[in-house]
Amino acid sequence: MTVRVGVIGTGMIGTDHIRRLTRSLSNVDVVAVTDVDMDRARQVAAGAGGVAVLATGKDLIDSDAVDAVVVTSWGPTHEEYVLASIAAGKPVFCEKPLATTRAACERILDAEVAAGRRLTMVGFMRRYDAGYRDMRDVVAGGDIGAPLLFHSAHRNPAVPPTVTSAMMVVDTCVHDIDTARFLLGSEVAAVQVVTPRRSSRAADHLQDPLVLIMEMADGALTTVEAAVNIAYGYDIRGEIVGESGTVELAETNRVVVKRDGGFGGRVPADWRERFVRAYDVELQEWIDAAAAGRSTGPSAWDGYAATVVCDAGVEALESGGRVEVSLRERPELYAAGTTATGTD
Amino acid sequence: MTVRVGVIGTGMIGTDHIRRLTRSLSNVDVVAVTDVDMDRARQVAAGAGGVAVLATGKDLIDSDAVDAVVVTSWGPTHEEYVLASIAAGKPVFCEKPLATTRAACERILDAEVAAGRRLTMVGFMRRYDAGYRDMRDVVAGGDIGAPLLFHSAHRNPAVPPTVTSAMMVVDTCVHDIDTARFLLGSEVAAVQVVTPRRSSRAADHLQDPLVLIMEMADGALTTVEAAVNIAYGYDIRGEIVGESGTVELAETNRVVVKRDGGFGGRVPADWRERFVRAYDVELQEWIDAAAAGRSTGPSAWDGYAATVVCDAGVEALESGGRVEVSLRERPELYAAGTTATGTD
Amino acid sequence: MTVRVGVIGTGMIGTDHIRRLTRSLSNVDVVAVTDVDMDRARQVAAGAGGVAVLATGKDLIDSDAVDAVVVTSWGPTHEEYVLASIAAGKPVFCEKPLATTRAACERILDAEVAAGRRLTMVGFMRRYDAGYRDMRDVVAGGDIGAPLLFHSAHRNPAVPPTVTSAMMVVDTCVHDIDTARFLLGSEVAAVQVVTPRRSSRAADHLQDPLVLIMEMADGALTTVEAAVNIAYGYDIRGEIVGESGTVELAETNRVVVKRDGGFGGRVPADWRERFVRAYDVELQEWIDAAAAGRSTGPSAWDGYAATVVCDAGVEALESGGRVEVSLRERPELYAAGTTATGTD
Amino acid sequence: MTVRVGVIGTGMIGTDHIRRLTRSLSNVDVVAVTDVDMDRARQVAAGAGGVAVLATGKDLIDSDAVDAVVVTSWGPTHEEYVLASIAAGKPVFCEKPLATTRAACERILDAEVAAGRRLTMVGFMRRYDAGYRDMRDVVAGGDIGAPLLFHSAHRNPAVPPTVTSAMMVVDTCVHDIDTARFLLGSEVAAVQVVTPRRSSRAADHLQDPLVLIMEMADGALTTVEAAVNIAYGYDIRGEIVGESGTVELAETNRVVVKRDGGFGGRVPADWRERFVRAYDVELQEWIDAAAAGRSTGPSAWDGYAATVVCDAGVEALESGGRVEVSLRERPELYAAGTTATGTD
Repeated sequence: MTVRVGVIGTGMIGTDHIRRLTRSLSNVDVVAVTDVDMDRARQVAAGAGGVAVLATGKDLIDSDAVDAVVVTSWGPTHEEYVLASIAAGKPVFCEKPLATTRAACERILDAEVAAGRRLTMVGFMRRYDAGYRDMRDVVAGGDIGAPLLFHSAHRNPAVPPTVTSAMMVVDTCVHDIDTARFLLGSEVAAVQVVTPRRSSRAADHLQDPLVLIMEMADGALTTVEAAVNIAYGYDIRGEIVGESGTVELAETNRVVVKRDGGFGGRVPADWRERFVRAYDVELQEWIDAAAAGRSTGPSAWDGYAATVVCDAGVEALESGGRVEVSLRERPELYAAGTTATGTD
Repeated sequence: MTVRVGVIGTGMIGTDHIRRLTRSLSNVDVVAVTDVDMDRARQVAAGAGGVAVLATGKDLIDSDAVDAVVVTSWGPTHEEYVLASIAAGKPVFCEKPLATTRAACERILDAEVAAGRRLTMVGFMRRYDAGYRDMRDVVAGGDIGAPLLFHSAHRNPAVPPTVTSAMMVVDTCVHDIDTARFLLGSEVAAVQVVTPRRSSRAADHLQDPLVLIMEMADGALTTVEAAVNIAYGYDIRGEIVGESGTVELAETNRVVVKRDGGFGGRVPADWRERFVRAYDVELQEWIDAAAAGRSTGPSAWDGYAATVVCDAGVEALESGGRVEVSLRERPELYAAGTTATGTD
Repeated sequence: MTVRVGVIGTGMIGTDHIRRLTRSLSNVDVVAVTDVDMDRARQVAAGAGGVAVLATGKDLIDSDAVDAVVVTSWGPTHEEYVLASIAAGKPVFCEKPLATTRAACERILDAEVAAGRRLTMVGFMRRYDAGYRDMRDVVAGGDIGAPLLFHSAHRNPAVPPTVTSAMMVVDTCVHDIDTARFLLGSEVAAVQVVTPRRSSRAADHLQDPLVLIMEMADGALTTVEAAVNIAYGYDIRGEIVGESGTVELAETNRVVVKRDGGFGGRVPADWRERFVRAYDVELQEWIDAAAAGRSTGPSAWDGYAATVVCDAGVEALESGGRVEVSLRERPELYAAGTTATGTD
Repeated sequence: MTVRVGVIGTGMIGTDHIRRLTRSLSNVDVVAVTDVDMDRARQVAAGAGGVAVLATGKDLIDSDAVDAVVVTSWGPTHEEYVLASIAAGKPVFCEKPLATTRAACERILDAEVAAGRRLTMVGFMRRYDAGYRDMRDVVAGGDIGAPLLFHSAHRNPAVPPTVTSAMMVVDTCVHDIDTARFLLGSEVAAVQVVTPRRSSRAADHLQDPLVLIMEMADGALTTVEAAVNIAYGYDIRGEIVGESGTVELAETNRVVVKRDGGFGGRVPADWRERFVRAYDVELQEWIDAAAAGRSTGPSAWDGYAATVVCDAGVEALESGGRVEVSLRERPELYAAGTTATGTD
C-alpha cells in the first residue's frame, strides 16, 4: 500500500523531507503541501512533480487525499496541527518540538489518551541512527553491566548570531536529552548547568560551551557538553559507562588517509551528513507503520518529557542551581516497551 | 516516473533484489518475475504482493508491462537475457558475471555497439560503497599523489565445499579485479598467483588462501589476498599507496565496546551486512537512470574486462606463471569517463 | 656523575623505584635504604645488591654517602623527611602527597622559600607520560585554540574494601587534579562533586563512581570521572576541548587482533602497565637534574595546590555543594615556566 | 656488575649507541672507542666524558679494560671484528649486517661453533619493539590460528640518491626478512620480486617501490612492500593472517587531534622516533646478558640467514624470476628456542 502524505511547512527541513519521501523512500507519495508562505509552497510543490497546494494545514489534514501528515512548520504551530491530526484519526509525524510549552504537550497527551491510540511520532531521529541503536543493543545485551553514566557531546561548527543560550538547551541539548532517555531507559529527575568561560568564537550573549548535567530517575547520571561554535566539524559523541564496561560511538569516517606526517579521517560537516541515514530510516519506519495501521517511534510522551526537561534546563542555566523535573503520571498508552524505538 | 521492472531468476540474490526494489527503493515497481523453477517463481511473486509470473525470460523481456530487466539467473544464461534485452531496447541490470566466457561477453559488446547505446549495467556493487567512493575521491583529489600500489584483501568466514580454487578467482577475486580497475582507472595487463600453504579450515581441494598479483596497464600493481575460510568475519580491506601518501578503508563498526581487558568493534558477518547500502544505492541509481533514459554504472565493457582477467587468473593459478591479459580495442561507446561509476 | 640515592620507605612503590633506579636508569646508584620495618628494609637492601641499611630517615638524609633522597614512606611522614632534606640541602623526590595537610605543605613552602632554591620534586608521574606531554604540546601549539574544557576519566578495575569515598578524591582524583593544572596551566578555583547511583561492584560505603567538577582560575572547566571498580581494565582517558578543536589521549594498544567476529586491542591491566615509562622518565629526569644541580618537575607548590584542592574536593563530596579553593600567594620561587614539567 | 663496553665505529649509529649506553642504560660504562677517522673518534670520546681512544678495533677488542664489544663500523669490516671478539671470548653486539657475504657469515658461524658458545648478537632491533613482540605473543597464544600470510610494509619518507635498488633489498627489506623469520618462526625458502612503475619521487635509477615475496619453509607466505620515498612519514606496518584471525601493528600516535574538518594522529618522522625504545631495550638486554655471562638475541645464525636471503632477493630483483634459498644445516648451537628473541 502506498501512503499518501501531506506536508505542512515547506521550509528547509520540510523541503528536505519532501525530497526524501519523493526520491528515496518506498511506498509513499507526497500528495499535498501547504505553508504560511504560499509562494514557497507552490514552488516546492512544482519541484516535487506537481503535488496539490492547499490553503491551510487544517485543509490538508482534513483532505480525503491525505492518509498521513508531516508537520514541519514553525514550532508554535505544532500543537494545532498535531491536535487536528489526532482529531482526524490520521498518523502525524511532527518534527521536534512536539509543542513549545508543557501545557500544549499535555493537551496533546490528553487528546491521544482520549482517542485511545497513539497517532503521533516525534522527530527524534537519533533513535534511528545505527550507532545509537548499536549502543542501546550493547547496553540491553548486558555486555557492560548496568549503565551508570552517559557522556554526550554535541558540537556544531557554528551557529547564527540569533541563537541564544536558552536555545542551546531547547534546540541543541534537546537531542541529547531524548537520547539519554532512549539509551538509559529512564526519565530525567533533575538538571543542573555548569559553564566554562565563553568561546571567543561565540556571539557575546552566548554561553557557549555549556555542560548540562541530568540526574536520571533510576540514579544514572548524564553529562551533556554542548559547544556550538567549535569550528572543526559537526561532532556527535556519546559514551555509556556501565558497571563493568563502556560503549561509545565510533568515528564515522569511511577511509583513513595518510599524508604530510599524519593519518586521519573526516569529521562530518553538518547534521545532514551525520544523520542522513537516520532521517531516511525514521521516515520509512513511520510510513511502514502508517501503512500497517501501527504506531511507532518516539511518542507524544517522549515529546512531552523532552519539553519539560528543556524548560528545567533553561531554568537551571539561568539560576545556576539544581532544578528538579516533575512529570505527570505516565498514561498506560505510553507504557514502556511499546515500540522498539520508544522509551523502554 | 515509476519504472516497471521484471526479474529473471528468483534465487537468493534475485529474491533479495525483489525485496529491495519493493520495500526500500523509490520510483520502481516489480511487475513480473520468472525462474527455471516455476514453483519458486510463483512463491516469490506471491510474497512480493502478487506480481505476474511469466513462463520464460524471453516472455518477460518482451512484455509491454516491463520497462527494465534485472538478470539474477544462473551465470551461463546471462548472455541470452542480456542480448535479448539489448534487442528489445530495454535497460538491463545483470548480476556478475556479465557472461561466463570471453566470447559471450564480446557478443554482448558487439550487440550494444551495433545498437549504438549502452543498455547494460553489471552488478559490481562495490563501486557504490561509500568507502570505495571515498577512496576514489581521495585519489582523484591528488591527496596521495599518483597511485602505485593497491592492496586488496577479501576475506570470507567460510565457503561451501563445492567452491573450487578457480571459483576463488572467478567469484571472489572478480570483485577485487573490478575494484582495482575502478579505483586505479587502468586495465589489467598481466596476472600471477602466489600461494601459501592451505588453511586447515579449507576443503582439501581448495587453494585457500591465495594472492593474485595484477600488473595494471599504467604500471601500477595490485595485490589481492583472497581467504575464504577465515572464520572471524567478512572482512574487506583495501589500501592504495600513492607517491606521497596512502588511503585505506576504515573499519565499519559503529560503536566501540570496552570490556574484559580490551576494547573493540564488530567486523561484518557477511557480504549482506557489509554491502547492504551499496546494493540499495546501486539499484536506485540504475532505476533513476532507467527512468531518465540514461545509462549508468559498470558497463558491458567492465563486465567483459572482468571476465577476461578472471580467465587469465585461473590460467595463472593453474600454471603458476605470469599470464598476460589482452583486451580487444575499447569501443568509443565505452570511452573513459562515461559515468561517475564507470571506468575512467 | 653518578648520583648516590637513599630511599626512605621500602614498601611496594619504594621497592619498585629501587628496582628502577638499580636496573633501568642511568648514572644513579642506590646506596642506602631505611623503613619503619627494618626487616623489610634489610630484605630489600639485600635484593638490591647489598646497599646500606640505615636506622632512620634522618640518618639517611644526613649521611655523607647520600646525594639525593627518595621519599616513599607513609604519607603522614612525608613532611618530616622533605623538611629534613631541604635543611640538608639535598634534592628530594617525594611520592604524592607532598604532605597530608595544607598546613604541612605550607611549612615545606616556607622552608624552600627560606632556603632560596627548589629542592623538592613531587611524584606526579603523569607529567612524564608521552601522551599527556603530546596533549600539552598540541594545546601550546595553538592547534585547537584556547582550551575551554578538560574531560578526564580515571578508571580502575577494582579497589580494596578499605578504600573510602574521600580516598577516591585524595588518592585517585589527585592525579587528575594535577593533570588539569599541568595541561591547562591554571589553578583550580572551585570544585563540586556530582554522583550517579553506586556501582553494585563497589563496597557498600563507597560512592563509586563520582564526577568531580573543577572551575579553573582562568575560566576553563574540568570534569573528572572516577570509577574505581570498573572491572574491564585500568583506563585513563583525557580530552581537551579548545575553541576550534580537541585533543584526546589515544588508545595505548600496540597491536590489533581480529577474531571471533570483531577486532580489538588491549586496555592496560593496571597503573604499572599504563605508566611504566612515565615512572622511568620521571626519575631519570630527577637524577639528571640532581647531577647537574638543577631543580625540575612538579614542585612543592604543585604538591601544595593538589593537597588544597583535594581537601576542597572531599568537602564538596560530603556537602554536595560548590566549594571555593583559595591558595596562598604564589612565591616567586615557583613562578610559572620554571621547568618544562612544572605548571606554566 | 657494570659492563665495560668498547665501541668500534663512531659514525651516526655508533654515536647514537654511545649516547644510549652513557645516558639511558643501566649497568654499563663505555670505556673505549675507535674509528678509521681518529679525529672523529677523539671528538666522540670527548663528548662521552673522556673515554679512551684506541688505535684499532683489534686493540680495543684485546684491551683488558673492555668486557664487551659493539661493532658499528662499515659493513665490510664486521667480519673481522666479530671474529676477533669470538677469538677473545668477548660478547659482541654487531649492527646489521653480520657480514656482507655469505662466505664471511659462514666463517663466523664456524668460529662460534668451534668456540662452543654464542658470543654474537646481531642488531635486528625490531625484535625488541613492543609491537612486534605483541604480534609474536598473539601468534604464539594461538588466538588467530596457524599463520598463513605476513604482510609487511616498510616506508621511508626519502632516501639519498646514492641508494640503489639492491640496497632497498639489503638495507631496507633486511629488517622485514628478519621480522618474518622472527614472527613466523620459519626460514625463507624462496624469494621473488614484483614491481610497479617507479615513483616520480625516486631517483631515476631506483626501483621504488618494490614488493618482495618470500615463501617460508613451512609454507607461509610473506609479502614485503618497500617504498623509500613515500614523503608522508616513516611508516612500518605489519599484519599476520592466521587460519582464523589476524594481528596487525596498531598506529603509534599517542594523541588524536580534531581540527579543520578531520581527526588524526601522527606518523613517525623517521626510524629513530619509531624504534627509539627498541634500541634501548635491545642494548640493555645485551648488557644484562653480558653481565650474566649469557647469550641472547638474534644470533650469528640469524645474521647469516638474513644475508643469504638478501643475496637471493637481489638476484630475484635483477632476474625478475623466483630464486630458491638454500641454507647450510643449522648447527645445534643455534637450535630453536635458545632465547626469547631468537628464531624459534
